[in-house]
Amino acid sequence: MSSSAGISVYGFTPVLSSASTLLETDPPSAAPVVFPVAQTPIPSTPLAQRIDAYAKAHLPTPTYNHSLRVYHYGIAIKRYRFPTWAFSDETYFLACLLHDIGTTEENLNATKMSFEFYGGFLALDVLQHQGDSKNATAPKDQAESVAEAIIRHQDLCQKGKITAVGQLLQLATIFDNAGLYSDIVHPSTIEDVTKHFPRLQWSNCFARTIEKENKLKPWSHTSTLGEKDFSLMVLGNTLMAPYE
Amino acid sequence: MSSSAGISVYGFTPVLSSASTLLETDPPSAAPVVFPVAQTPIPSTPLAQRIDAYAKAHLPTPTYNHSLRVYHYGIAIKRYRFPTWAFSDETYFLACLLHDIGTTEENLNATKMSFEFYGGFLALDVLQHQGDSKNATAPKDQAESVAEAIIRHQDLCQKGKITAVGQLLQLATIFDNAGLYSDIVHPSTIEDVTKHFPRLQWSNCFARTIEKENKLKPWSHTSTLGEKDFSLMVLGNTLMAPYE
Repeated sequence: MSSSAGISVYGFTPVLSSASTLLETDPPSAAPVVFPVAQTPIPSTPLAQRIDAYAKAHLPTPTYNHSLRVYHYGIAIKRYRFPTWAFSDETYFLACLLHDIGTTEENLNATKMSFEFYGGFLALDVLQHQGDSKNATAPKDQAESVAEAIIRHQDLCQKGKITAVGQLLQLATIFDNAGLYSDIVHPSTIEDVTKHFPRLQWSNCFARTIEKENKLKPWSHTSTLGEKDFSLMVLGNTLMAPYE
Repeated sequence: MSSSAGISVYGFTPVLSSASTLLETDPPSAAPVVFPVAQTPIPSTPLAQRIDAYAKAHLPTPTYNHSLRVYHYGIAIKRYRFPTWAFSDETYFLACLLHDIGTTEENLNATKMSFEFYGGFLALDVLQHQGDSKNATAPKDQAESVAEAIIRHQDLCQKGKITAVGQLLQLATIFDNAGLYSDIVHPSTIEDVTKHFPRLQWSNCFARTIEKENKLKPWSHTSTLGEKDFSLMVLGNTLMAPYE
């Protein structure tokens, strides 16, 4: 694969870090259309299947469902708002399924590192070194793009750039966790995604995870989102309240 | 080692992320005294010696000298301003020597990840898996503290917390790179440190490294410090200009 093709298919295309500036730039004239889950299928490659099985085996059901919602919302957002972003669904899927791998009970207690950093480190290993065939192993560039996105998925900056796949992961996680950017996803998309992947009281669930991370590791990167503010914002997610 | 002792000796004590708020809190009444290099010796443990040799072998001389200056300035800052911070000189030394390991020509080109993240993962490996004896290997907690500090060493946040060793690394690197916080180090300390570890045009050198990172990886975390602002700030380091 050529160098520039490798950069874009794995999502390394640099885009603005600031979600607000990005979304204010060249907005579409029409409102978003519905993207039912059936129109944003998960990839069926051996690698995607292996990581799907890995995530299902390791993540508690609410976190697994959140990861799948982040995938479907993200693809819907990308098709509506960023149709030129050229990374593969597979790369984005891997980032979604592994982005919260650092938050399992086992992993929260296995490290003193911030969960995003440990998660990125785990992802590098799981993607590159645990496949039983070449097809089920991620190329280095792809694994690194996923790790970079995971490490930065709570790194909300106003200046500079981030990878396109990293920005989409941020937008879709904040959408599911806090209900921000409600104008870029059709309400019926939320309806269908939450029907397939129920929230199971995700707001409470995620707020408790944030509190656990901050309690176990008060020095952690999560604390920079506001030690009280962040969980209050998550618990105040009125957009998703009807689907809890 | 008890759990809480393990936390403080390796620098996991949570402190404010915001350098300005931290420095404004309970400032000392007296100005800093001189700390000549002889009073802030580098640790002589097998681990410290192994990592010193590793850094000397891998880092270009200007970067190696910068790493040693960051060590000596940091210990001087800690003794004057944060005497209650209880982490070992060894832990801080390891963080200093490895914090820019991601910026070597080889490593800049070996990855598409932001240099701080790649550097943190390299450090985890070098510290834990490359020692030829138990004494020259870092315990997991220590390696993770060093990795966490490296990953966050350009993560300048206003809210939340960071590890104490991470905050000291940030303060000392920004002091050496941009001349900020000049009131917490005695001018004669700068004189003695730069005599032992000459800057060798470090301002230009580091500005070029930032530009190279942003050029090779325009999506990188370094870009969030301001794609032009950051190298301008480094080149405008008037405090250190007499020692270039």
